[in-house]
Amino acid sequence: MDEWIKSLKTNTPQEGFELAIKLATKGIEYVQPDEKIRKKIRPKYSRNPDNLIAASEVIAIHYQTVAAANNYWRTNKRVY
Amino acid sequence: MDEWIKSLKTNTPQEGFELAIKLATKGIEYVQPDEKIRKKIRPKYSRNPDNLIAASEVIAIHYQTVAAANNYWRTNKRVY
Amino acid sequence: MDEWIKSLKTNTPQEGFELAIKLATKGIEYVQPDEKIRKKIRPKYSRNPDNLIAASEVIAIHYQTVAAANNYWRTNKRVY
Amino acid sequence: MDEWIKSLKTNTPQEGFELAIKLATKGIEYVQPDEKIRKKIRPKYSRNPDNLIAASEVIAIHYQTVAAANNYWRTNKRVY
Amino acid sequence: MDEWIKSLKTNTPQEGFELAIKLATKGIEYVQPDEKIRKKIRPKYSRNPDNLIAASEVIAIHYQTVAAANNYWRTNKRVY
Amino acid sequence: MDEWIKSLKTNTPQEGFELAIKLATKGIEYVQPDEKIRKKIRPKYSRNPDNLIAASEVIAIHYQTVAAANNYWRTNKRVY
Repeated sequence: MDEWIKSLKTNTPQEGFELAIKLATKGIEYVQPDEKIRKKIRPKYSRNPDNLIAASEVIAIHYQTVAAANNYWRTNKRVY
Repeated sequence: MDEWIKSLKTNTPQEGFELAIKLATKGIEYVQPDEKIRKKIRPKYSRNPDNLIAASEVIAIHYQTVAAANNYWRTNKRVY
Repeated sequence: MDEWIKSLKTNTPQEGFELAIKLATKGIEYVQPDEKIRKKIRPKYSRNPDNLIAASEVIAIHYQTVAAANNYWRTNKRVY
Repeated sequence: MDEWIKSLKTNTPQEGFELAIKLATKGIEYVQPDEKIRKKIRPKYSRNPDNLIAASEVIAIHYQTVAAANNYWRTNKRVY
Repeated sequence: MDEWIKSLKTNTPQEGFELAIKLATKGIEYVQPDEKIRKKIRPKYSRNPDNLIAASEVIAIHYQTVAAANNYWRTNKRVY
Repeated sequence: MDEWIKSLKTNTPQEGFELAIKLATKGIEYVQPDEKIRKKIRPKYSRNPDNLIAASEVIAIHYQTVAAANNYWRTNKRVY
């Protein structure tokens, strides 16, 4: 597969969220590489509450990773 | 998409919880951007225990992230 | 919404567990604010193993957060 | 509710696992306090693969908490 | 129950994965101690995609714990 | 089983993601070692939104582990 991610680093929490969505989507793409099949099932699951909430959960898990990677986009210095 | 989040920092644990809800909701919005469809399925899933508990789980996962980002809103200093 | 949480700090692991339950419950309340509807579905899901285990999972996720916030209620000092 | 947990500290990884099971069980008890109902549904869900795996997942989540609380029962000192 | 785990420490990431599988399996055993029942439902769930993926998820959660306990089997020293 | 993993260390976030997929797949293989059965159920679950999203979730959980093991592939030094 082509390079689709270079770094977990993002400039903002919102870009980080969008990266989390990309990661969730890529997980599905690796399991189902056929774009035609994915496009066919998309209208169905994007109207199904179970699927929408489950997709939101996958995004949430990836967002934990991305947020940690970015040290939660903290700008304040912590003194030890 | 417009900027909808600037920071994971919140003043209180309760504001953090509300941010977690926003993140959970945004996850659904990115997957289903059509507001009409979302509004149509909402009455159904908000009365469905499976969906309510699953939504509460997504909030819980985001709350872990927000709480960590805020160092759990600890006010006491820890000495190392 | 009124203030319902002031801090993630609790005196004991058991109080922490009860806070985790409160957080799980609040997640549901924010998604379904109508108390009448929540009371109506409660008898059903509290007898349904799927729902009970799923609710226990949401509590478990919040308990991770609360336990971390309380440094696991450790009393022993760690020397670095 | 009576005190049912004093500490997340256990002597061994196995005792920690048993504490995780207790926490998972308590989550269910708080949501369904009626022992008669719980006993009635138990034979059903303890033969249902979906429920068994889901219960094992809740245990796994609590075990993360208990293991972290016990610093993974590490006996070797790490030098910083 | 007999002692079935002594430590979360393993020599390799692969042994750690196998320990995660053991932990996932033990979670099921504690909830359903009757081996006959477990053997009876096994052929069914091991051909069911929902169950297989859910079992893989429980393993993933335990693997997080085991990997953290082993400091991710890092051999390189980090300098602070 | 033959050695299939030597280290959680990868050169890039993308290789790490592919390792996470391998870990998710291995979880399924350990539970269902019969390749013929796995190949038989694959076409079904790879067209099923529930299964695809659930598989993506398992990948997400493993990716947390792999990313932490690689210190999030950070290249910038942090000063303490």
